[in-house]
Amino acid sequence: MNCTEEKKKLGFASDYMKGAYPAIIERLAETNMMETCGYGLDPICESARDKIRMACECPRARVEFLVGGTQANATVIDAVLRRHQGVVAAETGHIASHEAGAIEASGHKVLTVPHINGKISPEQVSIFLEDYYNDENHDHMVMPGMVYISHPTEYGTLYTKKELQELHEICRKYHIPLYLDGARLAYALACPASDVTLPDLAEFCDVFYIGGTKCGALFGEAVVVPDPELIPGFFSIIKQHGALLAKGRILGIQFDTLFTDGLYEKIGEPAIKAADKIRTILQMKDYHLCFDSPTNQIFCVMENDQLEKFGERVEYSFWEKYDEDNTVIRLATDWATTPEETDALIEIL
Amino acid sequence: MNCTEEKKKLGFASDYMKGAYPAIIERLAETNMMETCGYGLDPICESARDKIRMACECPRARVEFLVGGTQANATVIDAVLRRHQGVVAAETGHIASHEAGAIEASGHKVLTVPHINGKISPEQVSIFLEDYYNDENHDHMVMPGMVYISHPTEYGTLYTKKELQELHEICRKYHIPLYLDGARLAYALACPASDVTLPDLAEFCDVFYIGGTKCGALFGEAVVVPDPELIPGFFSIIKQHGALLAKGRILGIQFDTLFTDGLYEKIGEPAIKAADKIRTILQMKDYHLCFDSPTNQIFCVMENDQLEKFGERVEYSFWEKYDEDNTVIRLATDWATTPEETDALIEIL
Amino acid sequence: MNCTEEKKKLGFASDYMKGAYPAIIERLAETNMMETCGYGLDPICESARDKIRMACECPRARVEFLVGGTQANATVIDAVLRRHQGVVAAETGHIASHEAGAIEASGHKVLTVPHINGKISPEQVSIFLEDYYNDENHDHMVMPGMVYISHPTEYGTLYTKKELQELHEICRKYHIPLYLDGARLAYALACPASDVTLPDLAEFCDVFYIGGTKCGALFGEAVVVPDPELIPGFFSIIKQHGALLAKGRILGIQFDTLFTDGLYEKIGEPAIKAADKIRTILQMKDYHLCFDSPTNQIFCVMENDQLEKFGERVEYSFWEKYDEDNTVIRLATDWATTPEETDALIEIL
Amino acid sequence: MNCTEEKKKLGFASDYMKGAYPAIIERLAETNMMETCGYGLDPICESARDKIRMACECPRARVEFLVGGTQANATVIDAVLRRHQGVVAAETGHIASHEAGAIEASGHKVLTVPHINGKISPEQVSIFLEDYYNDENHDHMVMPGMVYISHPTEYGTLYTKKELQELHEICRKYHIPLYLDGARLAYALACPASDVTLPDLAEFCDVFYIGGTKCGALFGEAVVVPDPELIPGFFSIIKQHGALLAKGRILGIQFDTLFTDGLYEKIGEPAIKAADKIRTILQMKDYHLCFDSPTNQIFCVMENDQLEKFGERVEYSFWEKYDEDNTVIRLATDWATTPEETDALIEIL
Repeated sequence: MNCTEEKKKLGFASDYMKGAYPAIIERLAETNMMETCGYGLDPICESARDKIRMACECPRARVEFLVGGTQANATVIDAVLRRHQGVVAAETGHIASHEAGAIEASGHKVLTVPHINGKISPEQVSIFLEDYYNDENHDHMVMPGMVYISHPTEYGTLYTKKELQELHEICRKYHIPLYLDGARLAYALACPASDVTLPDLAEFCDVFYIGGTKCGALFGEAVVVPDPELIPGFFSIIKQHGALLAKGRILGIQFDTLFTDGLYEKIGEPAIKAADKIRTILQMKDYHLCFDSPTNQIFCVMENDQLEKFGERVEYSFWEKYDEDNTVIRLATDWATTPEETDALIEIL
Repeated sequence: MNCTEEKKKLGFASDYMKGAYPAIIERLAETNMMETCGYGLDPICESARDKIRMACECPRARVEFLVGGTQANATVIDAVLRRHQGVVAAETGHIASHEAGAIEASGHKVLTVPHINGKISPEQVSIFLEDYYNDENHDHMVMPGMVYISHPTEYGTLYTKKELQELHEICRKYHIPLYLDGARLAYALACPASDVTLPDLAEFCDVFYIGGTKCGALFGEAVVVPDPELIPGFFSIIKQHGALLAKGRILGIQFDTLFTDGLYEKIGEPAIKAADKIRTILQMKDYHLCFDSPTNQIFCVMENDQLEKFGERVEYSFWEKYDEDNTVIRLATDWATTPEETDALIEIL
Repeated sequence: MNCTEEKKKLGFASDYMKGAYPAIIERLAETNMMETCGYGLDPICESARDKIRMACECPRARVEFLVGGTQANATVIDAVLRRHQGVVAAETGHIASHEAGAIEASGHKVLTVPHINGKISPEQVSIFLEDYYNDENHDHMVMPGMVYISHPTEYGTLYTKKELQELHEICRKYHIPLYLDGARLAYALACPASDVTLPDLAEFCDVFYIGGTKCGALFGEAVVVPDPELIPGFFSIIKQHGALLAKGRILGIQFDTLFTDGLYEKIGEPAIKAADKIRTILQMKDYHLCFDSPTNQIFCVMENDQLEKFGERVEYSFWEKYDEDNTVIRLATDWATTPEETDALIEIL
Repeated sequence: MNCTEEKKKLGFASDYMKGAYPAIIERLAETNMMETCGYGLDPICESARDKIRMACECPRARVEFLVGGTQANATVIDAVLRRHQGVVAAETGHIASHEAGAIEASGHKVLTVPHINGKISPEQVSIFLEDYYNDENHDHMVMPGMVYISHPTEYGTLYTKKELQELHEICRKYHIPLYLDGARLAYALACPASDVTLPDLAEFCDVFYIGGTKCGALFGEAVVVPDPELIPGFFSIIKQHGALLAKGRILGIQFDTLFTDGLYEKIGEPAIKAADKIRTILQMKDYHLCFDSPTNQIFCVMENDQLEKFGERVEYSFWEKYDEDNTVIRLATDWATTPEETDALIEIL
């Protein structure tokens, strides 16, 4: 992807290439000269918090607005863990691989387990925790102090409600919190294949964040803590992590818009429809799909010669080498993907 | 300040209460559906970088856009210092007092020296560094590895060009960088009392940041590193600090606007004019002004009974108790302060 | 002090210049070929723990043996504080100045208050905590999460039982622990001027350490936590800090010896007697004593010409410049200082 | 292993169960009342440094004495890495698993690669580094900033001189240092199967430590830095890590003794002879040996029923479950293992 020129190609490289859902821009313009106090203590943020609490059916939840995903992960994990604890995650988890060591920079080890299509199973987590406590030298090792999952995962896959519930129970058994990274949560909620709702997250997770950046906002992630007592000093820890936006209302405006009239739960629908259509065509044309991912990310194998031409007309993401002659690529749709763009892509495939 | 209701009062509490300079909002709207690559690698960011380099007369400078001030300070300081080094700052420096320990959280001590109206003098810094190296136990102490100043300071005061030059020379003598926090830099540049220009900063500082949040942007700070080789791995360190905005162009748009047609160097003028007028009236009315601050912050003493009534009509900042009967307050003007607001305030004084 | 030649001079430079109380060396020799398990879980460590619990009249106390003072401070403070908390200390406290930033390296700010002869008063601490909670922006600041004192202080001064009790009450009021650094504790316990006993420490402190390195051991500090539930994961945190000695029994042997037949409470007596005698002579000869320090450290002013000759015959510590013509020096006695050495020093004065 | 009773069993659980080589204890006793300056600046430390430099044929090397292995690893790695860098290690490396997160606690990720009998091959390292630089998103990932190996490894295996040389060349190609953890180095040097000498380590490693704790000292590890300019501020960083022993000469005495008359290179011989004899018998008796480890650690599979009886007479280490009916155990010999103990063990097998 040539980053120094404006795009002329079809854009399927990622889901953070465009601006915001238009109503957000309108509302930014409308409220621009309003004066409000800073740091998220303003009435717009309060309104957004209330709407999120309502959508999650969790009236006591603490809701904090942070700017980005790596920031949210690093801040939450650092705020929750004690000094000697680490966080259990899939080896493919964003925190394990693509956050430049942000978790370790705050002093905590990421304890990885092998992934299953981007997920970790309740069994894996159970065995990991059991093994730790069975090891007679475990106090020479990093104590697993929380479990991190992403939903959708980095591979576009989803947890079922039953899996979430089981993970929740394992975590409760070991008295450690379950944390869900919802950077692309809107694409899970809009996915017919998923039986997980926002209230489910509030029931089964101890902390989770509702992604804005990739789901229609300019930026922003809403961290939800169902039990507001869970994290003492959270506000100061957010500040300490450089994650407290001075003009916090800019985040409030975005989430207030996204949580008005159930927008957030619907905003991913165009992405899912487009992705489903693309997947159907890919399968018809005998492309190999790498993961059974029902959300807005499509991973498929393309022959290198074809890919070269494809790349002249379409922005895509290189994922990894498949073999000498083939490459795994990722195509991502988003909230703004149009049927026209989808059809144009299909034409090229 | 009651943060849960919209303001009806005159707003002089701080300079981050409003949105952005209107042209920024317009440009956000115009570019909203454009697709660009992320992380600040897009052409808008490149354009903004070029304009900043030009304004600073520093064509080789590295320019990185971060979201907020605490974040910029924590990231830059952590990126520059070695493990055993700390940062010298005034005891009133933002990093020393109001960043919730963000510098220490990344492992570094803030080595404070007493302030002189918010500033530290070249002499103080020179003595501090000399004392460190003269102490025969200095390798049991934190090594001063950089010098931090803010301009304007937290007290609204300014360094002169000569002072900057002297600080620069001391730092060069000890082979440590000089870092300038320009959170409110626009108000220094617009101040007739100041002889310091952007090219001066590029000449005398090893790193500095050009504040956006308090100077007409929704958010954002532009970190300028005149010698681009100074900080190896800076991009990764920004990511590690959770300070890399996915849709980086949102920052690019703001700084590109602020650096078009010299806007940034003029944007603070209304604030300075308003503040000067208010200061004149305050002196005429025999209020005690606490610091000789020529920028957009005014610190004065108000009798408590009067303050109670004043507070019913004006948003101000409590600074500190002066004595039993009096209080130091801060009034802040900003880029959007109007002559009408100023006159209305003067009426009340 | 020329460190590369063996000493021929009288040694009053510090209290860690010699080896260990002879009985310790004997016991190391006797037990040398014994086999015990590692990491302080052996029966000798258990015996030492029991003797310390008994001496402190605190049968439930957790006792951990660490190697050195900076290590003990850094480990304890890091283990006790939460992420957003700092530690309140005198600006002259060892953690604030002479530990190369070990506290900050684990992410925590040292919140300094001015010292009064090396001490901080209950009033100072009370005001500091009150001011923090009264500041409406306190959640942008580092939360004071514990109070650190040293006893004797770095200036050889002592807290009274009443002062300790008051500090304890203030800490309890604010729900933060009181931590006492007893690097030179034996010299306080042996000091007739002191009314503070080991059981008093166990009553008024939440954590404290009994210094070995400067009090007759080769090395080693015994951290005592009267409430064993105070620090979850303490063993792992000790390991994480690199502070867990593999052959832990070497520490156990030393503390078991020091706590047999009340040795630790008496071991400082020769030091106190020698120091008292030296102080008496200094006063008779009209030297200026800088602090009213009743323990094993003597701070006095010496004229520079005299100091030069003095330094040819005596090892002393340079403390600081007094004025152009005079210097503050420190003379330290220790558990092994003999009357002959003391008389020889007095001869020279 | 019942840690609260003195041992009556044959001791093969580990190599840190006994005290020190007797000459060390004698020398501690002889020098006990000497006065020397602290922090490793004394003449005994200097003498030990010189002997180590000579044994390594590296006259310019910097040599620092630290107390323990986890401490040495954490301090060296933290001192060498820049903020955004991590350390490449085998997944079985001590730093990756059994140091309670000490590396992460100082902010750095351990980048693990699968082990081959405890080792990592030059090919693996080469591919890992190449992959990192080939990944177009590598600046969102932790930069590999050094390579860590242990020799002998945690599985008792050894690198060949050729492997070390290749690792050295790869590291040089990527401008990153090679660090070797020699906690059990004496057992490698005494091993006839090994062609690696101390001068080889000084030639191929950028930093390494010569283990004392497990090789005849009470405690202590000698960190050797062949290029003394490699680590600026190393002394302060050691202090900051709580790793600077006040009475540093205690370390000097131990290493001076170990490096007198080539003792260190011979001290492991009894351990190797005993281990070889035990391995021969085990093979004769058809036990399964898990790794081809030629040093002082023996890993074999024992049937659970037999193990129960074995454990009544022999201290061993549980390694891991082999299957339902069998267990992998570790037997460790050491510098003090006698032929009588070895024969008694063989009798039991």
